[in-house]
Amino acid sequence: MPNNAEFIVTPWQVDGEVDYEKLIKEFGTTKITNDLIDRLAKHTGEIHHFVKRKIFFSHRDLNWILDKYETGENFFLYTGRGPSGHTHLGHLVPWILTQHLQEKFGTDLYFQMTDDEKFLHNPDLTMDDTLNYTYENALDIIACGFDPKKTFIFSDIEYSKTLYKIALKVAKHITFSTVKAVFGFKNSTNIGMNFFPAIQAAPCFLPSVLKGKNIPCLIPAAIDQDPYWRGIARDIAPRLGFYKPAQIHSKFIPGLGKGGKMSASEPETAIFTVDSPNVVHKKIMNAFTGGKATVQEQKKEGGIPEICPIFQYYTVFLKDDKEIAEIHQRCKSGDLLCGEDKIHLSEVIKGFLKKHQKKRKDATKVLEKFMLRD
Amino acid sequence: MPNNAEFIVTPWQVDGEVDYEKLIKEFGTTKITNDLIDRLAKHTGEIHHFVKRKIFFSHRDLNWILDKYETGENFFLYTGRGPSGHTHLGHLVPWILTQHLQEKFGTDLYFQMTDDEKFLHNPDLTMDDTLNYTYENALDIIACGFDPKKTFIFSDIEYSKTLYKIALKVAKHITFSTVKAVFGFKNSTNIGMNFFPAIQAAPCFLPSVLKGKNIPCLIPAAIDQDPYWRGIARDIAPRLGFYKPAQIHSKFIPGLGKGGKMSASEPETAIFTVDSPNVVHKKIMNAFTGGKATVQEQKKEGGIPEICPIFQYYTVFLKDDKEIAEIHQRCKSGDLLCGEDKIHLSEVIKGFLKKHQKKRKDATKVLEKFMLRD
Repeated sequence: MPNNAEFIVTPWQVDGEVDYEKLIKEFGTTKITNDLIDRLAKHTGEIHHFVKRKIFFSHRDLNWILDKYETGENFFLYTGRGPSGHTHLGHLVPWILTQHLQEKFGTDLYFQMTDDEKFLHNPDLTMDDTLNYTYENALDIIACGFDPKKTFIFSDIEYSKTLYKIALKVAKHITFSTVKAVFGFKNSTNIGMNFFPAIQAAPCFLPSVLKGKNIPCLIPAAIDQDPYWRGIARDIAPRLGFYKPAQIHSKFIPGLGKGGKMSASEPETAIFTVDSPNVVHKKIMNAFTGGKATVQEQKKEGGIPEICPIFQYYTVFLKDDKEIAEIHQRCKSGDLLCGEDKIHLSEVIKGFLKKHQKKRKDATKVLEKFMLRD
Repeated sequence: MPNNAEFIVTPWQVDGEVDYEKLIKEFGTTKITNDLIDRLAKHTGEIHHFVKRKIFFSHRDLNWILDKYETGENFFLYTGRGPSGHTHLGHLVPWILTQHLQEKFGTDLYFQMTDDEKFLHNPDLTMDDTLNYTYENALDIIACGFDPKKTFIFSDIEYSKTLYKIALKVAKHITFSTVKAVFGFKNSTNIGMNFFPAIQAAPCFLPSVLKGKNIPCLIPAAIDQDPYWRGIARDIAPRLGFYKPAQIHSKFIPGLGKGGKMSASEPETAIFTVDSPNVVHKKIMNAFTGGKATVQEQKKEGGIPEICPIFQYYTVFLKDDKEIAEIHQRCKSGDLLCGEDKIHLSEVIKGFLKKHQKKRKDATKVLEKFMLRD
């Protein structure tokens, strides 16, 4: 972390306690207001609990996407996954909202597996490893319930014939100075990584190229991916004759340790979709919480749900506001101790994963239907 | 041209009077000796006049290629073309020798059309332009008489599914510092150009990847392409488990103006394969020569064939040493005046192009047989 920084957020690093208000100012995005939520709800009917609870908290041009939609011009959704390991619960958050948006707006979804970037970035990953994770992770994506007729998952490596052509048009206008400024690339960065931002920008324009007409693009993603759109895709879109992609940004789901987002590099603090119930239970029971040092203290003073990953997981995995309010109140008052709380969350997550793993297994049969090929 | 430099040779620029002896030292290549020519002739039977006349003058590891060949391990040939315009006579020189080598050694040839690089490098070229030139230029390649069963022409843009995968493995080990040092790239260079050296290195390893075994590679090319092999492909080959590609380097064919290689950017001094006989005649009649200012002077003092593009074209297009020696003698003695000399060359070139254009037209029918597709 740089000196004097309280937190750092880049596509490759999220550290410190993230101040999301500050991030909105730094990145120059726009807060999702209650008015905008109401406008969204006119079309979605219900308000997704991720939106209501401000897990999705920031956007670019979401109003414009709705303007277009209301005048009969539907958008497409684009999101992605860097397949460097198994999927964990934090990864699912943008996918779950993406599925909700697809369902409510009846949109196409283009889902990019950035296996090229993961291969280039990680010295220890072989190409076979990343391609293997592309297909493993795709099963988790499909398990989120996307429409097979409207969902196109593609591997950067396997779909490169189409992507490279579009990326060349982007790359022609992006200099090393730009990727240095936007991503902090150095002279020691490999030339594949230097080129990659052009590949990540390509899907913003892919459906427009495939269908021969300009189609608005909405990208649901965690906010650490913003530099790709801010610094590259939105900058280049008008020069190539395309709309600027709009975005809707999520916060990070914390790991089970103290501070930081859930990260596969700390497997003990991340719950993977392939974890067995026993492993899930053990990880949760070992989690950091907002509880006090002793039972006596906690009964007297209460816990601090605001800093507690256990509580934050409820905001993701429990839809019922009343249930969450009750947990919050019981924790604050000292009535709910961390042991009981963890056992409860363990049951919730194990229940969620049981269903997810069933759908994940079923996905192996339909995987090919979802994959976009050259 | 940098200060104090007498000449400059890079993949994008050749200026000044090139001192080939000096270039061998600067690039660290090896001169083709008469001993090596004799060794080559054991296999080729005849000595090609490009080799005899030292138009191909330098190499890397050609001895090693012959070692391998003599122990039963055949190599493949790899060369390329940047399709930024029509083919001119200068381009044909490496292709003619490549065809000779293919015929004599019975080798496969992989012919790369670097349309991606031309698109990225030239602000005025559209992607459609470069793809169009890929196919136009491919006709000239086929017209050189390559074996359709052993010749694989591919467009970087159209064959990117296969190439990108190999290029990623190369790119992972090449930093911006390296391409800056090898090619003089700057912070203002676009990120596509930064990545491109990995794409140009990929065909060195392509047949080994396609056939699942390590195959030696020999690259016949003009010496300005050397940085790609010196700085990238040869450096990276052992790390990827492949042989280092060997090379055989040609000199540049001069333009019809004073100094410099034949260049499409000066169309009046370059003879294109699609030029009509009238255009060819006019360009040659307007050429710079090694002649004197007046007929009187020339008759008295003789011309200077060494600096005369007309004379140099004979060394390329006339196979008969005696015929060339006679022209040389008549020019030096003042007997042959530039007008007669130009008319003679015009006939030689028009004769060559008449046959070439016939073969070029026939090539349209078999083009697809030569193209390598994903």
